[in-house]
Amino acid sequence: MKLLRVGPPGSERPCVMGPGDRVLDLSSLTKDIDGAFLAGGGVDRVRTALAEGTLPEAEPYERVGAPVARPGKVVCIGLNYSDHAEETGAALPAEPVVFMKASNTVVGPDDEVLVPRLSVKTDYEVELAVVLGGTARYLSSPEEAAGLIAGYAISNDVSEREFQNERGGQWDKGKSCETFNPLGPWLVTPDEVGDPQALGLRLWVNGEQRQNGNTKNQIFGVHHVIWYLSQFMVLDPGDVVNTGTPAGVALGRGPQAYLREGDVVEVEVDGLGRQRQRMGQA
Amino acid sequence: MKLLRVGPPGSERPCVMGPGDRVLDLSSLTKDIDGAFLAGGGVDRVRTALAEGTLPEAEPYERVGAPVARPGKVVCIGLNYSDHAEETGAALPAEPVVFMKASNTVVGPDDEVLVPRLSVKTDYEVELAVVLGGTARYLSSPEEAAGLIAGYAISNDVSEREFQNERGGQWDKGKSCETFNPLGPWLVTPDEVGDPQALGLRLWVNGEQRQNGNTKNQIFGVHHVIWYLSQFMVLDPGDVVNTGTPAGVALGRGPQAYLREGDVVEVEVDGLGRQRQRMGQA
Repeated sequence: MKLLRVGPPGSERPCVMGPGDRVLDLSSLTKDIDGAFLAGGGVDRVRTALAEGTLPEAEPYERVGAPVARPGKVVCIGLNYSDHAEETGAALPAEPVVFMKASNTVVGPDDEVLVPRLSVKTDYEVELAVVLGGTARYLSSPEEAAGLIAGYAISNDVSEREFQNERGGQWDKGKSCETFNPLGPWLVTPDEVGDPQALGLRLWVNGEQRQNGNTKNQIFGVHHVIWYLSQFMVLDPGDVVNTGTPAGVALGRGPQAYLREGDVVEVEVDGLGRQRQRMGQA
Repeated sequence: MKLLRVGPPGSERPCVMGPGDRVLDLSSLTKDIDGAFLAGGGVDRVRTALAEGTLPEAEPYERVGAPVARPGKVVCIGLNYSDHAEETGAALPAEPVVFMKASNTVVGPDDEVLVPRLSVKTDYEVELAVVLGGTARYLSSPEEAAGLIAGYAISNDVSEREFQNERGGQWDKGKSCETFNPLGPWLVTPDEVGDPQALGLRLWVNGEQRQNGNTKNQIFGVHHVIWYLSQFMVLDPGDVVNTGTPAGVALGRGPQAYLREGDVVEVEVDGLGRQRQRMGQA
């Protein structure tokens, strides 16, 4: 099943992709697609309604939003593909590298992304995002994580490399700029995604392919990551976990590869749809 | 003015300290003390109601919660007192060091704080917390920050030093454990706090004083910090900024100083009240 939210920022309506890729309105079932909906059996109610064929078609819309309402947190895994660790000059991590993104960075998959003021190193990162459907706290094994995953989405973990690496201290400073986390278009349920460790990830800038990876090359797989994080923090329903990016980011390509106003970024993950962002200037 | 929230976790009622330190109920004015309330003139409405003497006394309660509902984010400044930078062996930062704490770490000022499983280095940090009352985005000067501050509160930025410094990567891993951010008891408005750079901060463990600092020794003052952060991210109403801790943390004192189940931590900042946490075990 593919859940989505359509409409103006802050006023998105919950929807689901129905038969023949018709977008159906879920407003009769829920006010929004958020942690409470995902943890409270919402997906099952949608499944039933879909089977009954009672959902109305969505009204025309001009924008797709992020497929979940603002998450409580966005947790990210760094250097989780060996080829990406290599291009950044970092050693392979012995255990997951964890950092955070402000959750008000989450925008729709095709929204404008803003190059921050004074930025010269704005970069892209295609990632597989996991959305929690339950509470993950001290899980006893990676296997236990499977039942807590509401679904998957494409995430572009936009990053400012000077802010991240050259301005003193921690990565978060280059990860939390306005509009830095396009998410979606869909939240795709695990049954439809299949093996999360067999998904191709691709990213283009102005039509030129820059990233071409596969989640089979993740150092720490999705279930391991959720289990691991749960030893250090409580993951809540609706939280988003960005599971790392493969090689090909601008940081590894040289100064001319960074994003500038007017650039167009396209992002794709197998089975999760496609994003398209035009870069603006903050 | 001192705003507070009382009652069981998740069901706190908004209140204000009235004349003679009577706790008055604000439920007739607002459902909660959150970003929307703070940005929407809520404090002024409370001031008017206080002057009119129309607010009823709060019903008896057994717990004080954090003085703001769960913030959108908790941003922290590291190494912001020269004596603390020295005790950790770090160089004085040339510009603010920024990291983040998961916002579901925020608990009441006297709630139990849990030593994480497998933790041997759970540490304390008394801090001055700033709560935003407006949106801070690319502020043009530190002076502009003053008008966006809803108030101040005590924060205990609980930290697990092994998770933070010895487990690969970024500090966030040791900052976001369950219950790791006692906040409150009050949100005190700026008019009542006076100069935020002249506040004594103190912390005791089992009655022994461990920290005794003053915000006059902050390397980057409160207004500078808010201005600075606004160049890298958008701060929203209700967001919390922990502005750093003075010397005296367990990390600088040796292994025997870390917190264990049964320890009692007391925390004080001039004019902002007092916290008292008993340490439990996760």
